[in-house]
Amino acid sequence: MDLTALQSGLDTIWVVLTAAMILLMEGGFALLEAGFVRQKNAVSIIMKVFVDITFGALIFFFFGFGLMYGEDFAGLIGTSGFLMGGDLTHIQLTISHDTYWLFQCAFVIAVISIVSGAVAERIDFRAYILFAIAMTGFIYPIAGHWIWSTGGWLGKLGMIDFAGSATIHALGGFAALAAAMLIGPRIGKFTKDGVANIVPPSNLPLASVGAFILWFGWFGFNSGSTLSATNSSIGHIAVTTMLSASAGGATCILFTMFRYRKADPPMVINGSLAGLVGITAGCAFVSDLVAIGIGAVCGIAMVFATEYLESKRIDDPVGAFAVHGVSGSIGALAVGLFARPDLTEGVGRGYSGLFYGGGFQLLGVQALGLIVVIVWGFGLTWIAFKLIGRVVRVRVSRDEELVGLDVGIHGVPAYSQEHDFIELGQLKDR
Amino acid sequence: MDLTALQSGLDTIWVVLTAAMILLMEGGFALLEAGFVRQKNAVSIIMKVFVDITFGALIFFFFGFGLMYGEDFAGLIGTSGFLMGGDLTHIQLTISHDTYWLFQCAFVIAVISIVSGAVAERIDFRAYILFAIAMTGFIYPIAGHWIWSTGGWLGKLGMIDFAGSATIHALGGFAALAAAMLIGPRIGKFTKDGVANIVPPSNLPLASVGAFILWFGWFGFNSGSTLSATNSSIGHIAVTTMLSASAGGATCILFTMFRYRKADPPMVINGSLAGLVGITAGCAFVSDLVAIGIGAVCGIAMVFATEYLESKRIDDPVGAFAVHGVSGSIGALAVGLFARPDLTEGVGRGYSGLFYGGGFQLLGVQALGLIVVIVWGFGLTWIAFKLIGRVVRVRVSRDEELVGLDVGIHGVPAYSQEHDFIELGQLKDR
Amino acid sequence: MDLTALQSGLDTIWVVLTAAMILLMEGGFALLEAGFVRQKNAVSIIMKVFVDITFGALIFFFFGFGLMYGEDFAGLIGTSGFLMGGDLTHIQLTISHDTYWLFQCAFVIAVISIVSGAVAERIDFRAYILFAIAMTGFIYPIAGHWIWSTGGWLGKLGMIDFAGSATIHALGGFAALAAAMLIGPRIGKFTKDGVANIVPPSNLPLASVGAFILWFGWFGFNSGSTLSATNSSIGHIAVTTMLSASAGGATCILFTMFRYRKADPPMVINGSLAGLVGITAGCAFVSDLVAIGIGAVCGIAMVFATEYLESKRIDDPVGAFAVHGVSGSIGALAVGLFARPDLTEGVGRGYSGLFYGGGFQLLGVQALGLIVVIVWGFGLTWIAFKLIGRVVRVRVSRDEELVGLDVGIHGVPAYSQEHDFIELGQLKDR
Repeated sequence: MDLTALQSGLDTIWVVLTAAMILLMEGGFALLEAGFVRQKNAVSIIMKVFVDITFGALIFFFFGFGLMYGEDFAGLIGTSGFLMGGDLTHIQLTISHDTYWLFQCAFVIAVISIVSGAVAERIDFRAYILFAIAMTGFIYPIAGHWIWSTGGWLGKLGMIDFAGSATIHALGGFAALAAAMLIGPRIGKFTKDGVANIVPPSNLPLASVGAFILWFGWFGFNSGSTLSATNSSIGHIAVTTMLSASAGGATCILFTMFRYRKADPPMVINGSLAGLVGITAGCAFVSDLVAIGIGAVCGIAMVFATEYLESKRIDDPVGAFAVHGVSGSIGALAVGLFARPDLTEGVGRGYSGLFYGGGFQLLGVQALGLIVVIVWGFGLTWIAFKLIGRVVRVRVSRDEELVGLDVGIHGVPAYSQEHDFIELGQLKDR
Repeated sequence: MDLTALQSGLDTIWVVLTAAMILLMEGGFALLEAGFVRQKNAVSIIMKVFVDITFGALIFFFFGFGLMYGEDFAGLIGTSGFLMGGDLTHIQLTISHDTYWLFQCAFVIAVISIVSGAVAERIDFRAYILFAIAMTGFIYPIAGHWIWSTGGWLGKLGMIDFAGSATIHALGGFAALAAAMLIGPRIGKFTKDGVANIVPPSNLPLASVGAFILWFGWFGFNSGSTLSATNSSIGHIAVTTMLSASAGGATCILFTMFRYRKADPPMVINGSLAGLVGITAGCAFVSDLVAIGIGAVCGIAMVFATEYLESKRIDDPVGAFAVHGVSGSIGALAVGLFARPDLTEGVGRGYSGLFYGGGFQLLGVQALGLIVVIVWGFGLTWIAFKLIGRVVRVRVSRDEELVGLDVGIHGVPAYSQEHDFIELGQLKDR
Repeated sequence: MDLTALQSGLDTIWVVLTAAMILLMEGGFALLEAGFVRQKNAVSIIMKVFVDITFGALIFFFFGFGLMYGEDFAGLIGTSGFLMGGDLTHIQLTISHDTYWLFQCAFVIAVISIVSGAVAERIDFRAYILFAIAMTGFIYPIAGHWIWSTGGWLGKLGMIDFAGSATIHALGGFAALAAAMLIGPRIGKFTKDGVANIVPPSNLPLASVGAFILWFGWFGFNSGSTLSATNSSIGHIAVTTMLSASAGGATCILFTMFRYRKADPPMVINGSLAGLVGITAGCAFVSDLVAIGIGAVCGIAMVFATEYLESKRIDDPVGAFAVHGVSGSIGALAVGLFARPDLTEGVGRGYSGLFYGGGFQLLGVQALGLIVVIVWGFGLTWIAFKLIGRVVRVRVSRDEELVGLDVGIHGVPAYSQEHDFIELGQLKDR
């Protein structure tokens, strides 16, 4: 056993363990979304999470990874690595290519899971499968190539996005917005006058524990993105992640006590998540105090974004856009403002944000990259759903929506107090 | 600090962390089983999981570990290591013997948890405790000795079962089958004509998140089985695990959409688990594409096995046999077909499967080992329950079953909407 | 890459991963407490857990860490390290100061979470926020300084408390007792004659899985307290943790079957936790068999303590005192009885317990330290709530308590079966 083998082993278990933590976030998404939607749609949203993780992994194995991390063509697209084959020698890591794939696979599954919440309670299941394929096999991998691959044009310009506030969350959040707008609000969500009607979340304890699981997974998400256990930023990354999430949650506790005269549970849950999303780009690059500031700003912005969407009659049942789209954008720009040269040295490129003597250069690149990612995510999602709509229906029937997708599409309720067995014939009579 | 101490530390935290992940799977089993059974039995099934983890650990400490990994006698049984005492010098690892015990302890608890689902909603609690003792103190350790210990006769013949498709899952699954057959179906499950009646699962969101937790734990289960962090297969193992699970779930989504005209949530949950079970033997030995194939086959086989058991009037409430027994068997045989010599080199024995030039030798050994494990698991479980039935009743009374085991045996419902306190006297009048 | 950098990387990921596991325990606390209380208060208790993690982290960052681990003044208080600034050179570790902060931050959040259960269903939300600030910013950091910091007076006397049976659990448990006594029992909990009325827990499956998540996190709690991955005790710590928890749970299964003629689910859940709490001080210092003994004693003591509190008309809804206060005390004393010189050598101070030739010295110090911590925790909590009561009300109004804190304070129920959207005006009419 020599030092190199030991280092490689250490890096490998670090990446495998953090990838597993990120994949556990699917359990968090499932709980969060099932808890936020109405009971009649709790299973259907979880089935979408199963689509995310199962189809997501397979499609990314066959297509997505190659397009994202394969040998670069013109800064635009990857051209090798499909089915883990072809030349991948440009990826120089202490870990094996499969281990790298696993980590990136966990990321792509998170992206598609962001969208699942925004189309909850009304999307057709087959349409969702087709969109998941488009997102994990093309939309995200291409944008990811531009920012994160060797040779991607945005990365070359100097965009830095440590664990993906832009690449993962702004992309996913704006894709969620496009999907929510295109599919339209749930029946009864808005009155004829455009006033938002309400329905309490079906299961807030589940939603809350979903948030705690996501928080746990985020340590894997951000710290694991070092891809090496000997990266000296790991501790700092975990700390900024913790502080920003706490600031997001605490701010929403205080802000909703002030604004609504009650600490609003769904907002507190989403505020913590907003803090996590916001710090994802800069976790390695900004100071502890800036991390607290980012979390606080993201928490408040999430509240306003939620209210704004409702005022515009856009129906995003779990707040996917307000959490991921808005905080992801804030996080990407915050790097341009607050990146510290001593922190970007190690893992980034030695660039500095506006407030640390770097001028407008980094901020400009970050803004450009963010706009590109937003336009791409929103536009391609719109196009994808338009194309999908030619093959299958995008939205369930009115009757299915009213009865709920669980019984309407999947033939089984989320919760049953049934005490005794039922003969099949009797069931149909009910 | 020298290199050896560092390696030993690295291996130790790897095994401790993965053991903790496997032990978290008990939370997954609890959720999965509580979600699948009727509400009136949700606590009782979770109490069985507490029996699994608490009695399982203690019995394995006092007896099981010694019988399984103690100094070999005639290839049949271990003879040292009870209470972690006696000569264990034949176990040569970079980790300490206690650390090794912890990991193996997490395994034995998984085995007994497989059985708990099959006898749900009708087994007597004391009978279950006695069976848990038999399984964790004798049945599994003996079979495990044959396959995994230094000197075990099946291992010596050349059987390879990386993380236990046969040793854990086929054994547990066939034990579950024996228990389910012997204890008989739940009241009302089958009509007089033998048609299966149905009852929706009580809590599908819980069952789903149970599956996600199991999936997370499985990375510990499979990758951790290297017992060393510098084993170069770790990344590959995690990837095949991911791909097979995804294939199992995705296949069940598509297959049930085709067969039942709806993506069937319980089948999708169990399909993902089937993929995980199936790859457990070969995760280190087969290629990525074979892993996908194994997952897909296990997913479909699980659906057919579930239907077949029902047609035979065997009542396995959570599908323990269909998931663990069937996929475990497929996984063990798949190694005989698809083991790649370059992959078995590192962690196995350099053997090759039928399709990789190894002829029928490995396949034959795998089949023999599988049959031995199945006969042992099924037979000893049958005998154990027959013996237990002489001491305590195996099945609860008809009244207790009808009212549910939660209130009937444990005196408390799983869920209560009670708003106010109740005087004890009043409660009894209800 | 040299050996020192590798070791530092290894230690860093060990501490980050175990810290994340401890932080996931907040999800466990949330589930445990939400499952144990009445449905009408399930969200409110979870909101308190959000206060614990968000305010706890921020306050500990600004104040608590400095008071606890800053440069010592007179053995009593830390004086640097606020906002991670100032001189921290006395903390000599292979990990960075931020990484160390993160781990300690996870601990302080656990302490305050212990208290949240005891005041469930009746405390005012603002009062709880203020108390959380007092606990995480002052009460716990000061006691922690005495025991764990370089220069703390109890530590200097020779008190050893590996992962905090006294520092975390006895302190938290006695603080919980003070809070429960001061705030008084829930309306209807006791009859006029002082007989305890009962109400079944609202969601035992959630409470159970909360316990499994806590169990998982405890491996991080105890093993991670080595703060170094090359500490040779890690495996042993994980094993004693496992055995004690199992003994606590198994004992409660058998003991409640004997005492109540049924295996009592809430007692089994709390019995496992009692075993975990009890071994927290001695996990590195006692033998496997002693660990089993500690777990068993703690399990039974928890049952009696629960009954005793009820007989004294003290209302502790989730058993926080019986689990943490009592078992924490037992655990701290058990070190004085059973610490083995060969085990304290490595991680402690080479001291021995009474039964291992150490005489009464260690036992005396442990008892002294325990009493100090108990008096401090109980007394300061009492004072804190008295002071808080001058600023805000400590207890909600009778009407809010009767309707439940979820709707009464947070304006939303935990669970909703609502099928359709409601116009805001209609909601108010209900």
